[in-house]
Amino acid sequence: MRVTTIHGPRDIRLEERPAPTIDAPTEAVVKVVAGCICGSDLWPYRGENEITPGDPIGHEMVGVVEEVGSEVSSFGPGDFVIAPFCHCDNTCVHCRAGMQSACENVAMTAGGQGEYAKVHQAQGSLVKTQETPDPDMIPSLLSLSDVMATGWHAAVSAGVRPGCTAVVVGDGAVGLCGVLAAAQMGADRVVSMSRHEPRQKIAMAFGATEFVAERDEEGVQRILDLTDGVGADAVLECVGTDQSMRTAFKIARPGSTVGFVGVPHDVKLPVGRMFGNNVGLAGGLAPVRKYLPDLLERVLSGAINPGLVFDMSLPLDEVAEGYRAMDERRAIKVLLEP
Amino acid sequence: MRVTTIHGPRDIRLEERPAPTIDAPTEAVVKVVAGCICGSDLWPYRGENEITPGDPIGHEMVGVVEEVGSEVSSFGPGDFVIAPFCHCDNTCVHCRAGMQSACENVAMTAGGQGEYAKVHQAQGSLVKTQETPDPDMIPSLLSLSDVMATGWHAAVSAGVRPGCTAVVVGDGAVGLCGVLAAAQMGADRVVSMSRHEPRQKIAMAFGATEFVAERDEEGVQRILDLTDGVGADAVLECVGTDQSMRTAFKIARPGSTVGFVGVPHDVKLPVGRMFGNNVGLAGGLAPVRKYLPDLLERVLSGAINPGLVFDMSLPLDEVAEGYRAMDERRAIKVLLEP
Repeated sequence: MRVTTIHGPRDIRLEERPAPTIDAPTEAVVKVVAGCICGSDLWPYRGENEITPGDPIGHEMVGVVEEVGSEVSSFGPGDFVIAPFCHCDNTCVHCRAGMQSACENVAMTAGGQGEYAKVHQAQGSLVKTQETPDPDMIPSLLSLSDVMATGWHAAVSAGVRPGCTAVVVGDGAVGLCGVLAAAQMGADRVVSMSRHEPRQKIAMAFGATEFVAERDEEGVQRILDLTDGVGADAVLECVGTDQSMRTAFKIARPGSTVGFVGVPHDVKLPVGRMFGNNVGLAGGLAPVRKYLPDLLERVLSGAINPGLVFDMSLPLDEVAEGYRAMDERRAIKVLLEP
Repeated sequence: MRVTTIHGPRDIRLEERPAPTIDAPTEAVVKVVAGCICGSDLWPYRGENEITPGDPIGHEMVGVVEEVGSEVSSFGPGDFVIAPFCHCDNTCVHCRAGMQSACENVAMTAGGQGEYAKVHQAQGSLVKTQETPDPDMIPSLLSLSDVMATGWHAAVSAGVRPGCTAVVVGDGAVGLCGVLAAAQMGADRVVSMSRHEPRQKIAMAFGATEFVAERDEEGVQRILDLTDGVGADAVLECVGTDQSMRTAFKIARPGSTVGFVGVPHDVKLPVGRMFGNNVGLAGGLAPVRKYLPDLLERVLSGAINPGLVFDMSLPLDEVAEGYRAMDERRAIKVLLEP
């Protein structure tokens, strides 16, 4: 089969590899209908994360079950499924507590930018649709495997409540999904810190009520001005850099929480400010499986259309161009069709 | 009047100074019935915080109102009052949100280890008792001005719930009050990380169910063993050092929160671990005034006896010995009688 591999900074290749097989009774092999490139894939792409040259890459996908292991009873060949990027048994103590990303049997999708991918804990991880979805639903369903669930986790972690003022730091695909999540949770005002018009358009479609284009101290001041000097009731940090985290803590009102879902890179948390202002931090790797049934219902009912974050679709053959487009910010998020 | 001042590392003096006067209509002057030494006073005492030589020290006290400004209507001369260490108007946007330690008019008690002290926002800050309390109630009432409310804030911030397993890092007076708070909030198991027998005794009286004497990796392993490898449902970090914070994050189960109330000193938060395990951090400077009415009721009804943390009482004249006793860990917390 063809699968995307990474060999070094900016060296993405589509290669021929053996298709995955069932090696344990908990596994399933899924024929990928659509995969995509994650913002976090850009870290290794840019040489900022260590890699093993030749490793498959891609952890987001939806597809059709090809084969299942003997312990997988709820799914079978032909089922259309959404695969959370982190697999879970959904029965262990952490899963039962709603923290599926810390499952005792956690594993990740590898090779989601390929023709077939393995799900290690299929019974606990996969969620299927009743029927094969219309092609125009694919982008939104695909977003549930990571990006939309991650934006949702940011909003949950930040404690978004009906009537509150939520500010989203970051206008990448996760940040946009954070806007959508905050709006769905009833935030009265959803401020997107965004300076890019195409992203602002999507944010507006997702429910953003205001935009702040300024960054750093200027951006902080704008948020304080917008909130009568009080600060935001909930802050969604959807980038993961030290700069964005600093901004997040400066705009959060005393007693509030910064919900963070951007994989942190060289972040030094401002513990003195956190202490003095009682601003907490919560979040992390999203427990996608927990949110999936609810989000699926919202997608199928038409309440949300998170697939809008995909502003470029490419055949799998052009995956390298997809990385370039995201790296150069020509695309927000790229969908790949095998 | 006599008041305690700090002139440098380990240089504590009782000096004659003018008594405070009413300089603003929001103020009250309180004749101190009992003050005490806070664990946080040891930072400047040990030369680890900057000071202005000659500054009065001491922020915890109870006493009798001597005089009030024209805007103070709920209190008058003769009232016995508890003074939160941080003063608040209890009407501003932050106070209304329950974050009185971030009040727009926040101020601190200075000179609480003296004969008279000023409360800047008397109307919003003070809480009075119906009648002059019995002398044996004084220690518990005094504890409400900071240490007990701070331990309570740790438990609230950590999200202690009925039936949960709470672990308290630190067996100083705040940690002991954290044990009491967690037990009051219905924690099923309250584990105190303590190796000192006199402190363990108080912790047990406060509701601790288990003790872990080991520290660092050994202590972490013991907590994991006690929780079947899961970790604690809630962790109260009551020290403020990098070491104690590291321990706190290692023993917290995925999805839980570390509640921190120890003023952080040289703490580097383990943001990667926090992200990977979804362990949040919440807390900070305690909004004492928020908790005071409830805690006062618990003290007056006999439900709690936090005054047990005072294992040494000294006349104000011997305040320097009080600091030495706490510095050398001969005393947990020293009460001072002017």
